[in-house]
This record gives sequence, structure tokens and C-alpha cells, in this order.
Amino acid sequence: MTKARSNLQIDSARLWGDIHETAKFGGTPKGGVKRLTLGPEDKQVRDWFRKACEAAGCDVRVDALGTMFAIRPGRDMSKPPIGIGSHLDTQPTGGKYDGILGTLAALEVVRTMNDAGIETDIPICVCNWTNEEGSRYAPAMMASAAYAGDYTTEDILGRKDADGITVAEALDTIGYRGADAVGKQKFSAFVELHIEQGPLLEAENKTIGVVDRGQGIMWYDGAITGFASHAGTTPMPLRKDALAAFSEVVLAVEKLARDLGPNAVGTVGEMEIDNPSRNVIPGDLTFTIDIRSAESATLDALHAGLQKAAAEIAARRKVAVDIRRIWRKEPTIFDTRLVEAVANAAQELGYANRRITSGAGHDACNLATVMPAAMIFVPCKDGISHNELEDATQADCAAGANVLLHTVLSIAGVASGAKAIS
Amino acid sequence: MTKARSNLQIDSARLWGDIHETAKFGGTPKGGVKRLTLGPEDKQVRDWFRKACEAAGCDVRVDALGTMFAIRPGRDMSKPPIGIGSHLDTQPTGGKYDGILGTLAALEVVRTMNDAGIETDIPICVCNWTNEEGSRYAPAMMASAAYAGDYTTEDILGRKDADGITVAEALDTIGYRGADAVGKQKFSAFVELHIEQGPLLEAENKTIGVVDRGQGIMWYDGAITGFASHAGTTPMPLRKDALAAFSEVVLAVEKLARDLGPNAVGTVGEMEIDNPSRNVIPGDLTFTIDIRSAESATLDALHAGLQKAAAEIAARRKVAVDIRRIWRKEPTIFDTRLVEAVANAAQELGYANRRITSGAGHDACNLATVMPAAMIFVPCKDGISHNELEDATQADCAAGANVLLHTVLSIAGVASGAKAIS
Repeated sequence: MTKARSNLQIDSARLWGDIHETAKFGGTPKGGVKRLTLGPEDKQVRDWFRKACEAAGCDVRVDALGTMFAIRPGRDMSKPPIGIGSHLDTQPTGGKYDGILGTLAALEVVRTMNDAGIETDIPICVCNWTNEEGSRYAPAMMASAAYAGDYTTEDILGRKDADGITVAEALDTIGYRGADAVGKQKFSAFVELHIEQGPLLEAENKTIGVVDRGQGIMWYDGAITGFASHAGTTPMPLRKDALAAFSEVVLAVEKLARDLGPNAVGTVGEMEIDNPSRNVIPGDLTFTIDIRSAESATLDALHAGLQKAAAEIAARRKVAVDIRRIWRKEPTIFDTRLVEAVANAAQELGYANRRITSGAGHDACNLATVMPAAMIFVPCKDGISHNELEDATQADCAAGANVLLHTVLSIAGVASGAKAIS
Repeated sequence: MTKARSNLQIDSARLWGDIHETAKFGGTPKGGVKRLTLGPEDKQVRDWFRKACEAAGCDVRVDALGTMFAIRPGRDMSKPPIGIGSHLDTQPTGGKYDGILGTLAALEVVRTMNDAGIETDIPICVCNWTNEEGSRYAPAMMASAAYAGDYTTEDILGRKDADGITVAEALDTIGYRGADAVGKQKFSAFVELHIEQGPLLEAENKTIGVVDRGQGIMWYDGAITGFASHAGTTPMPLRKDALAAFSEVVLAVEKLARDLGPNAVGTVGEMEIDNPSRNVIPGDLTFTIDIRSAESATLDALHAGLQKAAAEIAARRKVAVDIRRIWRKEPTIFDTRLVEAVANAAQELGYANRRITSGAGHDACNLATVMPAAMIFVPCKDGISHNELEDATQADCAAGANVLLHTVLSIAGVASGAKAIS
């Protein structure tokens, strides 16, 4: 890897201004953002983004799923661009930074290069991926998953929101059903800046997370069938209490993740008792489990441990415990050379940094299966995201954008000595 | 106690016929009964019951809360009658026996005495208490609680169902708002036959439960406040998982009840996670606890143990565990002489029997605070009640009615040697 091009810095005030200017599109009274994908507020921010990219000299293209690609030309247009960016949609009670920082920082990188008169061999492409959040349409990371070939475009276009509106209809309504086939836009590499959405950087007082992995994920649907009976008349030894069995499952998931940690997490996020009543022993209930690790072998061990614990609990309590895996996504291994480029940029810019695993899923995790990809994390306050309380400092946002800038400069072929990654 | 009057038996076929004839008022396709208190089906069964009681020579009176008192005259009308009976309302998906057996068996006792030409010193009063179930109107055992002075009549008359209809309006609609003040009808004693609603008699192959106690009950409302955060990005050691803490509470309740058993039960029947999501660590949830014992001291120990466990869990997990007691009802101690009378009747009729504690609440438990009271249990299949699957055998129903008959005969003053209880 080459040295950082220079002490070139992005314009921190301009980036901060953009973040807060666009936060008005769907801004909530509590200081968050509600900008569901493909809704009217998403159209507003997309229009703003298109105009800003065009003003920065980019050619903006839109694909059949509404993903926006703003291309800053390079000296060698035969080379696919380096993609940078993230997404501009939010959760229903989301914050101002999740996805937005990465997208607007990518725009800021282009503006900074324009201001400094920097040309690159490889073009740069600022991206806004459609529906990363998955709040209005399932799955999350919809457009990047389709880009990576996990779903067909037709499948995704037919997905419906809670009101029965398809993705195709929503795209047409806001005028963002583009002409380009999904996957037509090729990339040399993709780098995504994002808030950490976890507490590690803040806790260790690091400014930059050099993301080398993304956790694999397993999702389960569970059901327990015991026997509903009278809370007053059923002696303890004769009970088949579905909720007591469930409680052991919850604690087993927690213990497994702790025992197989630190690179493992396990969560029971949902549970519903059928016909609950204050004086009835729960007979039937359903629940979900989310298990993650950056190691495939750990996912295997967590899966085996969960099955074993469930079987033991079921046998001992004489209840039926049915835990079914509905999804397994393998861990993401980000591109070694790109990760090194991110690490070098952070180091040479003097930011305290550490390697980190992405706990959440991101568009870059999908894209990593079809191109060299990497991510940059910056701290967020108390690790909170998907929440109107989501917060990050101006200095950390600028630091992340600077690392993005210098990562791009190091691989895009600025000087004759610079080596392009493609 | 005197010997059983004779080998007099109730008419098993007549009782069984009544049970199945009245089951058509609100009968469900699955063989259960849906007869919510004071609804149109309740009016049907009340009309049937009034007519049947009058045909059996009783004078039927109705009090201000709709409770029906059918009085068979005694030789000494200055003595308050011996009350027998139960309730004719059911759960929304209730069975054919809960309450109904006790009410119709009481009618059968009167018919049997009529057929045998038996006169008693003390009058007999067949009772149908309003709203024992509590499904449409809270509280359960509403009319007997008001009778015992736990609530004023005005309070109860103003209670509303889910549609906003008051008890007063519902009584007026079906024509069962009687002229008598609640509590005006006095009793020498009260004896209630009921299905066990638990598994003990069936498990031990006993026909009759001689109920000497009713469990005390404590109800709690609970809430746990942890911190909702991302299931993927929050390391296990940094979590404040409300659901994991709740799971420990559930198991603590179970362990306390087991450790302080066999005369203790503890149940968590309801729990709801706020804004549950598959990939979010639960931050807030609410739940309920039902704890019962026939011993006051055991209730005290359960309460103390629960508070201690909650405090320990809260401190260790750094979450807030708020468990608030909203009701404590002291254990019922049934009248020693009446319990003896029931035991003697069962014994002399040759029915396998055992002393038993009522796990559920019953009108007799409320009445026991203001008069001598006792209960008789018969087995129900698999201990199931409050369910369309509720079942009992004709032989067991008849056995219970025979014990009721001979208990009444032993205390109502049939022969000159018989000693009245009043």
C-alpha cells in the first residue's frame, strides 16, 4: 500500500451541514428521521442527492430497483468504478446517521477531490442502495442482495408492503424505477462508511473501526407446546409449563453465546403466549432466535448446542420444543487488500483504530460476495442505532470520511506510483 | 355427626340428563359451553332453572345482582336455610360441568328429597350465584364477594364489560335484576359441589375430595426495564436483556413454589415484550404472577422469596425489576363441622375419598368468611377445566350429588335425633 496521498481533509462543516440538511426529509420531533424506503420523504432526499451529485460533476444513473449510481469520471473509463456510499432510507424511528453518513461522506469525498483538482485513473461511483433497512419491504439490504444475485429483480419488484403496495408500484410512484438492469453497473471495489451501531469503539476510545469481517447470521422460528392448565389447581410436579421451558431456552441461548464468545451473540427477540391469562399455565407459545458469529465453525457449534439444549429441556419437562432454522448467512470476509488500505489510511491520518467485526448486516456484506469490499466504522453514542437517540460527533463523522477519502485515493490511481486495485 | 340417613340415592340419570339438557344453552360445536354471565344464553338457563326449581316446590327469589335463591321450605322457617349450589355461567370456551354440576346437583338433591317425602327442620336453598367466572365482568366470584361484603352492590352494578355494558344494564336486559338487597338472604351454612379442576383425585383414584381449605392467592404485576439494542452489534457482556432477566424470574417463581411445596404453586401466565423485533434485544416487558398456597405463612415466604430473587436478578443484570403485589386473598379455612359432615357422608356411602385443598377460587370461599361453608369435589378428566374438553363421568357426578344429599340430610334436621348446625 502506498502512503496517504497528502494531508488532504474533507470539509467537516460541509459534511455536517449535509447530514443535518437532509435530516429534514422525514425529520421527527425527537430529532430522529422517519424516511421509509421509496416513500415521499425518500423521494425528497433522492432528489436532493441527485442534484448534489450532478452539481459535483457526476453522471447519475438509476437501476431497476431504484439504486442510484453517481459516477465521477476517471482517466480510464474502461475500468469499473470504485463504489463508495451506503443508503439514505431509515427505520420508522431511525436516526440521522445510519446509512446517511456513508452516503453523504461519499459525496463529500467527490467534492473534496473536485476542490483539490484530483483526478483518478479509476472512476468513482457514489451509491445510494435502495431499502437497506427492510422496515417497509422485506428483505433488508434488498437491492444489494439482488445485485449479488440472491434474488431476482422480478421477485423483489413484486414484494409488498403492509398496505399491499409493491416495490414496482412504489418505485413508479416516486419516479425512481430506473432503466438499468440490476447488476449492470460493475465495480472494481466497494467501500462503505457506517456508524458502528455497537459500543466497542466508544468503550475503547477508538475513532476508526477497520472492519475485516461481518458476522454470519442464523435465524430460527421456535414453538413450545406444553399443556395449558389452571394456575391454582395444577401441582408443580404435574405441570407442562411452556413458559418455564421457554425461559430455559432463553438462558441456554445466552449461555451458549457467552461460552462460545467473545465472537458470538445470541438473542431471543420475540415471544408470544397463545391466549395468555393471569391464572392459566401457558400451554403454547412461539418465539424467534437470532444467533451471530464471524466464524462459520462457531455458528455450527451454536446450532448444535441449541439443538442439544432444546432436546434436553423438552425431554426433562415433557414438552415439545420445536426450533427451526429459517436462514443461515455465512460470515462475510472483507477483502484483505482493501481492509489493509482502510487500516493504512486510518493509521497515516493518526486516528486511533482497531480491527472490528460488523455485528449488523450491511450492503457491503452482500457486495463482498461479488467484488472486493470493505467497511469503515466510526463510533456512535452508547452504541445506539435504529433509534431517534442515535448520535455521532462531527469529528468522528469527519474522521470516517477522511479515512474513506484516503482509502479511495490509495487505490484509485492518483499519482503514477499509485497502484489500482482492479 | 350422625350416620347417613339411609341408602337414599339421587337419580343419576335425571341429573345427567339435566346437565346435558342445559348444555344446549350456549353449547359449542366442540361439545363445550359458551354461556357468559348475564348474556342471552345465561337468561335461557336461568329461565330453565327457575322453572325447574318452582316445579320442585321452591320459592325462587332474585337479589339485586341477579343471584337466584330457590327455597325449599323447612319445618322451622325461622331458621336460615342451608345453601347448596354453585353457578351456571361459563368461560368463553368452557365446559359442561364447572359450576353447572354443583347447581344442578343441588336441584337434584331437592327433587330426591321430594320423591322420598323427606322433610327437614331447616329450609334448603338452591343457589345460582351470578358471574362466578369473571370472563365478562371483573372480578370473578362477583356476587358472592359482594354478598360477603368485599364490594358494595353499587360498585358491582357499575362494572362494565368490554362493550361498555354495565352489570345493571345487563341484568335489566335479561330481567334478572331482583328486588332483594344483596345479603338479605341469610344462610345457616353453605355447601358447594364442584369438579376438582385439578388432577389429584383422578391420579389417586379417589371419587370424592373433602375440601377443607381453599388456597390463598397473591397476584402481581411485573415490569422489567433493560435496554433495547441491536442483536448483532451488542456483545453479550454489555447487554441489559429484559427477556433474559424475565426468564430468571419465571424460573425463580417455579423454584420457590417447588421448594415451599407441596402446598404452594406459582405461575407466570402473561408476558408481553414492548416493540418486539427478531433482531432487537428486548428492552422493556410486562408480566403477571399468580402465587397460591393454603397456608398464610407459606404465602409470606413466597412473597419474601420473590422479592429477594427479583432484587438479586436486577442487581446482577443491571436491569430494573419491578414486581408489585396487586391482590392478596387469605387462605380459606372451611368449617370444621361441615367438613366432617362431608367426610362422613363420603365414608358412609363408601366412596374413596381424601382431604383436598381447593386450588381455584369458588363462591364457597367467599361465603366461608361470613358463614359455615364447605365444598365437595369430584374428579374431572385429566384435571382439565375452563376448556371445551372438560369432562367428568356420570358415576362421579352422581357420587358428588349423593355426598351433597347426605351432607345436607345430616345437618338439616331430618329425624328428631338429627342435630342442626345453626
